[in-house]
Amino acid sequence: MATVKKSAKKAAKKAPSAKGIKYVYTWGNGKADGNGTMKALLGGKGANLAEMTRIGLPVPAGFTITTEVCTYYYDHKRTYPKTLRAQMEAGVANMEKIMGYKFGDSQGFPLLVAVRSGARDSMPGMMDTVLNLGLNDKTVAALAKATDNERFAWDCYRRFIQMYGDVVLGVQKLPTEDHEPFESVIEHFKHEAYGKDVVDSDLTAEDNKELVARFKKLVLDRTGHGFPEDPWEQLEGAAGAVFGSWMNDRAIVYRRKYGIPAAWGTAVNVQAMVFGNTGKNSGSGVAFTRNPANGENVLYGEFLVNAQGEDVVAGVRTPDPVSGMAKALPGAFKELMKVRTILEKHFKDVQDVEFTIQDGKLFMLQTRNGKRTAAAALKFAADMVKEKLIDWKTAVLRNPADQLDQLLAPVFDAAEAKKAEVIAKGLPAGPGAASGKIYLNADRAAAAAAKGEKVLLVRVETSPEDLRGMIAAEGILTSRGGVSSHAALVARQMGKVCVCGASGVEVDYEKLTVSAGGKTFKEGEYLSIDGTAGTVYGGELATEPSEIITGLIYNKKASQKTEKFKNFVQLMEWCAQATKMGVRTNADTPEQVKNAIAFGAEGIGLTRTEHMFFEGDRIDAMREMILADNETHRRAALKKLLPHQRKDFFGIFKALEGKPGTIRLLDPPLHEFLPHTKEQQMDLARKLGVKVETIMHRVEELHEFNPMLGHRGCRLAISYPEIAEMQAQAIFEAAAQCVKKGIEVQPEVMVPLVGYARELELQVEIIHRVAKEVMAAKDVKFSYLVGTMIEVPRGAVTADEIAAHAQFFSFGTNDLTQTALGVSRDDMGSFLNSYTENDIYPKNPFASLDTTGVGQLMEIAVEKGRSTRKNIKLGICGEHGGDPDSVNFCHKLGLAYVSCSPYRVPVARLAAAQAAINDGSKPKAAKKAPAKKAAKKAAKKK
Amino acid sequence: MATVKKSAKKAAKKAPSAKGIKYVYTWGNGKADGNGTMKALLGGKGANLAEMTRIGLPVPAGFTITTEVCTYYYDHKRTYPKTLRAQMEAGVANMEKIMGYKFGDSQGFPLLVAVRSGARDSMPGMMDTVLNLGLNDKTVAALAKATDNERFAWDCYRRFIQMYGDVVLGVQKLPTEDHEPFESVIEHFKHEAYGKDVVDSDLTAEDNKELVARFKKLVLDRTGHGFPEDPWEQLEGAAGAVFGSWMNDRAIVYRRKYGIPAAWGTAVNVQAMVFGNTGKNSGSGVAFTRNPANGENVLYGEFLVNAQGEDVVAGVRTPDPVSGMAKALPGAFKELMKVRTILEKHFKDVQDVEFTIQDGKLFMLQTRNGKRTAAAALKFAADMVKEKLIDWKTAVLRNPADQLDQLLAPVFDAAEAKKAEVIAKGLPAGPGAASGKIYLNADRAAAAAAKGEKVLLVRVETSPEDLRGMIAAEGILTSRGGVSSHAALVARQMGKVCVCGASGVEVDYEKLTVSAGGKTFKEGEYLSIDGTAGTVYGGELATEPSEIITGLIYNKKASQKTEKFKNFVQLMEWCAQATKMGVRTNADTPEQVKNAIAFGAEGIGLTRTEHMFFEGDRIDAMREMILADNETHRRAALKKLLPHQRKDFFGIFKALEGKPGTIRLLDPPLHEFLPHTKEQQMDLARKLGVKVETIMHRVEELHEFNPMLGHRGCRLAISYPEIAEMQAQAIFEAAAQCVKKGIEVQPEVMVPLVGYARELELQVEIIHRVAKEVMAAKDVKFSYLVGTMIEVPRGAVTADEIAAHAQFFSFGTNDLTQTALGVSRDDMGSFLNSYTENDIYPKNPFASLDTTGVGQLMEIAVEKGRSTRKNIKLGICGEHGGDPDSVNFCHKLGLAYVSCSPYRVPVARLAAAQAAINDGSKPKAAKKAPAKKAAKKAAKKK
Repeated sequence: MATVKKSAKKAAKKAPSAKGIKYVYTWGNGKADGNGTMKALLGGKGANLAEMTRIGLPVPAGFTITTEVCTYYYDHKRTYPKTLRAQMEAGVANMEKIMGYKFGDSQGFPLLVAVRSGARDSMPGMMDTVLNLGLNDKTVAALAKATDNERFAWDCYRRFIQMYGDVVLGVQKLPTEDHEPFESVIEHFKHEAYGKDVVDSDLTAEDNKELVARFKKLVLDRTGHGFPEDPWEQLEGAAGAVFGSWMNDRAIVYRRKYGIPAAWGTAVNVQAMVFGNTGKNSGSGVAFTRNPANGENVLYGEFLVNAQGEDVVAGVRTPDPVSGMAKALPGAFKELMKVRTILEKHFKDVQDVEFTIQDGKLFMLQTRNGKRTAAAALKFAADMVKEKLIDWKTAVLRNPADQLDQLLAPVFDAAEAKKAEVIAKGLPAGPGAASGKIYLNADRAAAAAAKGEKVLLVRVETSPEDLRGMIAAEGILTSRGGVSSHAALVARQMGKVCVCGASGVEVDYEKLTVSAGGKTFKEGEYLSIDGTAGTVYGGELATEPSEIITGLIYNKKASQKTEKFKNFVQLMEWCAQATKMGVRTNADTPEQVKNAIAFGAEGIGLTRTEHMFFEGDRIDAMREMILADNETHRRAALKKLLPHQRKDFFGIFKALEGKPGTIRLLDPPLHEFLPHTKEQQMDLARKLGVKVETIMHRVEELHEFNPMLGHRGCRLAISYPEIAEMQAQAIFEAAAQCVKKGIEVQPEVMVPLVGYARELELQVEIIHRVAKEVMAAKDVKFSYLVGTMIEVPRGAVTADEIAAHAQFFSFGTNDLTQTALGVSRDDMGSFLNSYTENDIYPKNPFASLDTTGVGQLMEIAVEKGRSTRKNIKLGICGEHGGDPDSVNFCHKLGLAYVSCSPYRVPVARLAAAQAAINDGSKPKAAKKAPAKKAAKKAAKKK
Repeated sequence: MATVKKSAKKAAKKAPSAKGIKYVYTWGNGKADGNGTMKALLGGKGANLAEMTRIGLPVPAGFTITTEVCTYYYDHKRTYPKTLRAQMEAGVANMEKIMGYKFGDSQGFPLLVAVRSGARDSMPGMMDTVLNLGLNDKTVAALAKATDNERFAWDCYRRFIQMYGDVVLGVQKLPTEDHEPFESVIEHFKHEAYGKDVVDSDLTAEDNKELVARFKKLVLDRTGHGFPEDPWEQLEGAAGAVFGSWMNDRAIVYRRKYGIPAAWGTAVNVQAMVFGNTGKNSGSGVAFTRNPANGENVLYGEFLVNAQGEDVVAGVRTPDPVSGMAKALPGAFKELMKVRTILEKHFKDVQDVEFTIQDGKLFMLQTRNGKRTAAAALKFAADMVKEKLIDWKTAVLRNPADQLDQLLAPVFDAAEAKKAEVIAKGLPAGPGAASGKIYLNADRAAAAAAKGEKVLLVRVETSPEDLRGMIAAEGILTSRGGVSSHAALVARQMGKVCVCGASGVEVDYEKLTVSAGGKTFKEGEYLSIDGTAGTVYGGELATEPSEIITGLIYNKKASQKTEKFKNFVQLMEWCAQATKMGVRTNADTPEQVKNAIAFGAEGIGLTRTEHMFFEGDRIDAMREMILADNETHRRAALKKLLPHQRKDFFGIFKALEGKPGTIRLLDPPLHEFLPHTKEQQMDLARKLGVKVETIMHRVEELHEFNPMLGHRGCRLAISYPEIAEMQAQAIFEAAAQCVKKGIEVQPEVMVPLVGYARELELQVEIIHRVAKEVMAAKDVKFSYLVGTMIEVPRGAVTADEIAAHAQFFSFGTNDLTQTALGVSRDDMGSFLNSYTENDIYPKNPFASLDTTGVGQLMEIAVEKGRSTRKNIKLGICGEHGGDPDSVNFCHKLGLAYVSCSPYRVPVARLAAAQAAINDGSKPKAAKKAPAKKAAKKAAKKK
C-alpha cells in the first residue's frame, strides 16, 4: 500500500467547497474531514472511521457520503444532489492518491472499494456491505497480474458479482425457490464439476471463472440487463442500494422496535479494500474489547484465517476464538491488543471492532461502542469506575434503563436444572433462562407468540429475515455461528436469551425437527436454554428468581455475595445520589409494597381499591351494594365492606412503614362487579335472596356502550356519595389504628376521573368531613392529603380550577392517553399494526408516553396547577411510570415522583437518575437511598 | 300619604357609609340610591324601582337589600353581615320619613311593608311576596282606627298571617293532607259560620278576627312557636325566607333550565304598602305595554277592583281585562296610559308592570322588560324600528335566538282543524299548536314525557310546583287564570303552547278527567290546543308547517304576504348585514341542502357519507366490502359502491349551486353496518353466498369494548386506503360531471378523527392523487380543499403539525366533548341528573358547548393551526353549531362559519349576528344575504 502524497489533500477538499454543501467527507493517512462527534451527519461507522484515522490507527482510506444525501434522496423522489457525483470523484481521487492505486485501473493494481451503509446507530436489516467493488472483466485480469494470484482475483470477482447481484441488483430467492439463486448455481456447479459438495476455497481460478460466467447469465436472465462493467456505475448503484435499504421492511421493523426516526437517514461509506483472503498470512475478525455477554475484561471475538470479513459474520465457516490469533498471526495479534487499549482509553467505553490482516498487517475497518447485555453493562460500568476510565455518573448512564429488568429476570431453578439432561452445549450469547415451544421459522414463531405461546426460535443460523421471529421469541438457539454471529448480536441487543453455535444440535427444516443428544424434538415441543451457561435442555424447566431478587427480597446471603448483586446495589446507590425525582409503586397488597420498598420505592403512587372487592366473600357484599335500590340498602351493604377495606388499608399502611401511600377511591364501572353468565346470576340470586330477574335487569341497566367513558371514577361517588364516605372511613380508621400502634402514616386520598373542579370539591368535602369524624371518634390526629387523578383532557386544561381543591395531582396517563387520542387500548389491536407500519405512532402510546400530544396536556396541567397552588405535589401513576423515555419526560416536567409496578422500580430509578444527570439537575435532599439501606442491612446480616 | 321631609335623606344615607359596605339602597320621592343599571347588585325589581322613582313615576318608598348579602349569607353558614341591621333600620327610617307613617306604630297609621324577592332575572319558584308586614294585635287596631275600616284592617291581618305563615314559617301542606292548611281553616270556618262556601270579601271584620285567632293557633301547633308580634322580627324573618328560597328545589330547577349561576344570589325589596283593597275606588293590576303573546301594540293585562296584587296573579278570582279599567277607574287608567308611554320611551322596550290603585291614585310597584313569545319578539322589534324607538341592530338583539325556532314550529293542519270540533275557548297565552295525551298532575306528566309520550298538562291553574310538568309538556291548558297567570307567564317564557282560563273546561283531579263541550276525556287521552287562537280541540290533530316554512321553502304566496313572514325575512336581512361569521348546514341529501339554503345557509359544513351506505341495496355492497378478506375483494365491493356515491355527490353539488360543500369520509366503525341478529345474518349469508359462520365470525371480530374510541374515522382508511380512494373518486367524478354541465363546485374533502399529522398526511396524499387522476381522465379542472375534523384532544394540541396538511379545520365538538370530558354521550344518562343537580355541569355539555374545557382546546387548536397556516379556514360542525351560546363562543374564536341542521340555520344566523353586534365586529363582505335573495325572489313572484 502506497504512502500519502501530500498534494492529494488539496484536490480532495477543493471540489465540495467550490460547490456549496459538502456531501462527501474523506479520511486517510492520519487526517480526516470528519470526527467521532459527527455521527448525525456521517453515521456511526463513518464518524468513527474518521476518529480512528485521527488517533493514528491503521485505517484504509475512504470517504463518507453524508446522511443529508439520504434525506435529500427521499425528499426528491429518489434522486441525488447535482454536486454529489463531482464530490464523489474528488473522494475517489483522494483515495487513489493515498493508496497509490487507480479505481478501474485495467493495467496496474486496481483500486477496489468496499461500500457499506452507516446509520447513526448500527442497524441490522439494512444493506450491509458490498466488497471488491471496481472489478470487471478487465480489472480482474489486472488484479490477477498485479498480485500474481489468479485464483484470488477471480475469487474476489465471483464474490463481488454475487454480493452485488444480491443486494444491489436484487437477484434474490423467489417465493417459489428453496435456495438463494447464486448459491444454487454454485452447488450445481460443484456437483457437476466434483460430483460432491466441496468448500469454496477448494475452487480453482478456472472454477471461479466459470462461476463468474454463470453468475452473469443469472443476472441477465433475472434483471434483463448485463452485469455493470463500469466501476462508477457499480459505485453509484451500490450507494443507491444503501439509501434504498433504509426503507426496506426489515430496517423499518428494526427502527420501530428501537424508536429510531426515519428522518435520520443513513450515510454511505466507501473505503479502499484490504484483503484478508490473500493467503495464510491474512485473515479477518471481529472482536469486543471486553465480553459483551457477561462483562468480563478480556478481548472477546473471533477470526478466520484467509477470509474476508463477511465470512466471519455470515456464519458459513465457524470461526476461531480471537485468542487463537496469538498463535496464528502473532504480530497482528500484538498490534490488535495495543489497539484495544488505545480504543478503550480514547472512547472510554467497550468497543466492538472489525479488522482485517492483509499479509500480516492489521487494518481497522470499524469501531463502535459495543452492544451489551444488561449484565455486561452493569459489570463494564462498575469495572471502568474502578479503573478510573469513567466517573460514577457516567457509569449510571452506561446502564441501559430499558434493559435493567433483564437482571431481575428469572433463572432456571437450580434443583431442577441439576436433574435435567443437558442435550447440547453452545456459546453463551445472551444470558438468562428460557423455556419454550420450538419453532424453526420466524413466521411460525411470531404467529405462535401472537397466540400467547412461549416460543424458542431454533435455526441453523439467523439472518435479518428472522428478525420478526427473534422479537417474538423468549430465546434463540442456533447450531452454527459464533458469538459475533447475527443471532448473538441481535439477542444481546434485545436482551433475548441466546445460545449459539450449539454444533450438537441438528436442525431439519424439512422434517421440522431438532435433534440433539440422541433425542428428536418436533416443532411445537419444549426445549430450554440457559444463555448464561450456554446449555440446552430437553423439555420445559421451571425457573426461579434471579440473584438480585433473592438478595434484595429474600435476603439470601449467597446471592448478596455475588459480584452482580454488589454491582447492582452500587448502581442503585449512585442512582439515589443523582436523582431529583422519586419513584413510587403501584401496589394493592402489603406484599407488593414490601417488594417495592426493597427495590427502593419511596411510597405508593397508586393503590387500586377495587381489586380488594373481588377477594373472598367481599364480592357478595359489593354486589349487594350494586343491587341496592335505595341509599339505605346501599349503606347496609357498604357497612359489610367497611371492615374488609379497613383491614386492607391497615396492612398496606403497616407495610409502608411511614412512607406516603396514595389510595384511589373506587374507579371501575359497577357492571364489572356483577356476574354476566346466567348461572352465576342465579347463584348470586340464591345467595342474596333476590329474584334472578332483578339481577339480570340491573346488569342490563348498567350495560354501557362505551364503559371507558361511562359511569365510573368519581362519577360513581357523585351519584352515590356513601361509597366515598365508606372508603374514606376505612382509610382513616386504618390510619387511626396505625397511629395508636405507633405506626407512622401518610395517607393520600385520590379521587379518580375528575374533569370538573366541582366534582372534586364535592368529594373533598366528604373526605374532610369523614376524617374529622374519625379523628374525633378515635381521638387521634394524623395528617393526610386529598388530591386527584388528572386523566381526562378537561381535567388537564382546567387544572387551575381543580388545584383549588387538590393537594396533589397524579397523572393517570393510561386513561389520559385513551381520551386524548380517542383510542381505546382494548380495541386498538385492529389498527395498531397499520399505525406503526405507517409511522403514525413512533411507539405504542400506551407503552411509551406520547410526549407530543398527551405530554402537552400534562405540561398545561402542571403549569395551571402550579399557578393556583405553587407547591402542588405532582406525580404519575399510569403504566408509563416504568418506561425510561416516559420517566425522562416526567423528570423534565418537574414531577415529584413516578409510580410503577414493584418490579419496574429499579428501571424507573435508573431512568430518573439518568434524566437528572443528563440535564445536570441538582439532586433532591438525599435523605433516602433505600437500596443503600437494604445493602447495609444485607451487609449487617452477613 | 305624607309628603317628603327633606331631612330624612341625610339620615338614611348616613348609616351605611359609616359602616363600610353599603348593603341597603333606598328609593322614594323622586330620589334613589340605585338605578336601572344596577341589576347585578339590586336585582331586577330593585334596580327598576329605583329607576322608576328617578324618572318621576309614582312609586311607594322602600329599600333594597343587595344580592351581596345573599352571597354573604350562603358563604357564612346562613348568617348576615353585622352592619346589616343598622342599615335596614336607616332604610325603614327613610321610608317612615317619606311616607309619614311609623313602622310598628300602634297609635297612628302604622307603616306596613311588602317584602319581595328580586333576583337579577325574574325567577318563578322563589319566595315571591309577603304583604302587609308590620301588622300585629296592636297595629291592626291602629290601622282599623286610622282607616276607620275594621274589616279592611283585619282582612289585611288575616292575609298577612296566612302569607307569612306559609312562606316564612313554612306552615304548608303535609304529604298526608289534601289542602293547604290555612285554606282548610278558612273553608272549615265558612261552613261552620255560613253553612256554605262564601267568597273572602263576604267575610266580616269579626270573621277575620276569628280566622286570625285560628291561624295563630295553627302556627303554634305546627311550629311550636307563637306568631311573631314584633314587626322587626317579622321583617328579618321575611328577608331570611327570601334568601332561603334562593336555594329551594324549584328555584334550582329553574336556574338549571335557564343557565343562571347560583352565585348571582337574590336581593330583597322592602316597600311601603299601598292598598288596592280599600274599596271600590281601589284595585290592583298587571299589564304589558304591548301584547306579549302576539306582539300587538296595545296595553295588555288585567286588573281587579278592590284587591291586592296577589289576588290578580293567584288566579283565585279571574280578573278583568285591563281595558275595562277605562270605565271602572277612568282617572287611574288615563294615568296608566301615560305611564305606559313614558316607560316605553325610557326603557325602549316592552314593559311588564304591576300597579295598585289606592283610593283612585295609581302607584307603580314594578316594571321589567316583558317576557315574550318569539312571535311577539319579532313583531315588537319590527314595530319599534318603524316607531324609531330602537335601531335595527337593537331589533336583532331583541329576538331571543334560542326561541327563534318557535316561529318555524308547525301549526295545525288547516283542513283538519276546520273539520275538528272546538270543545272550548280560552285565552291565547302561548302561540303554536300542540297535541298530546292529557295529564292532570306535574309528576305524571313528567313521567309520561320521560317515556317519550307527547304530553299536555291540564290544570285548573298552575303554580310553581307544576314547573317540572310544564317543562315536560308540549302544551299547557288551564281552566282558570288570565293572561298574566302563572301558566301564561311561564308558557310564554318557555315558548310552550298555552291556552289559559278556558272556563268551559272542567278539570276533575279525583276522577282524573277533563270535561268540555259535553265530552269527557280521561287522563292519557288526546286533546289538542291552539295557543295562537285560544282554541281547544278533542282528540289528536295533524299539524302542518308554519307560514315561515311554507313561505320560504314551499314559496306559498299567501304565507309570504303575512306580516310574520315579512318581519322574519326582514330580521334575516338585518342578520346578514350584521354578521361576521357564516352559517352552513349539516346535510346529507339534496333536499336538506335546498331547505338549508332557503334558510340562508352558505354551504355544507358536514355531509356524512356513511348515511348513504344504508339506502337500498347499497348496504349489501357495503357489507360485502366489510366481509372481504383481502384488498382485491374489498376493491371489487367498493367498485359497486362507487356509482352510488358519485350519484349522491352529484345531487348534493347540484343542490349547492356553487356553494362550498364539506364532505366527510367514512367515519363509523364497520360493525355498525353488519347485521346483528341471527336471522339477518343468515339472510345476508344467502345474498352474498358465504357461510353464516363467516359473517358471525366477522361480527365477533369487529366487536369493540369502546366503539367510540375504536377502529373508526380515518383509522379505517389508514387500514384500508382503498376506501378513501373510492370516496375521493366518487367526489371528484361527481365534481367533474358538474363542471361539464356548467355547474360550479367547491368540494371540501374532510378527513375524520385525525389525532396525528401523519394520519392526515397519508390521507391527503391519496386524495390529491385521485383528484389528479380524475381531472386527467375527465379532462376538467376544478379547485377543491382537503382538511380535517378536529375532534380528539390530541388533534387540538398538535394542530400546528396537522395544519401543515390541512387547508381547513372543522371542529367536531360532539366527539371532542366526549373525549375531552371522557364522557360517552350514549351512557351519560345514568349520571347526568346528579351532575346537573350538583351544579357540576352548568348545562348539558352536548347541548351547549363546554367553553371552559372543550372551548380551551378549541382555542389552542385555532392558535396553533394559524401559527402554521395563517389563513386556515375554521368551522364547527358539531351539534353545538345550532346553539346560540355556542355560536357566540365560535364568533369570539373567530371561526369562519358554524354548521348546523337545516332548521337550526335561522337560529344560528341570528345568534351569529347578535354576537357580531354585541362585540362591535365589522361584518364580513356582505356578498351574501341569502334570505334577502329569497325574499326578493318571493317578492318577484307576487
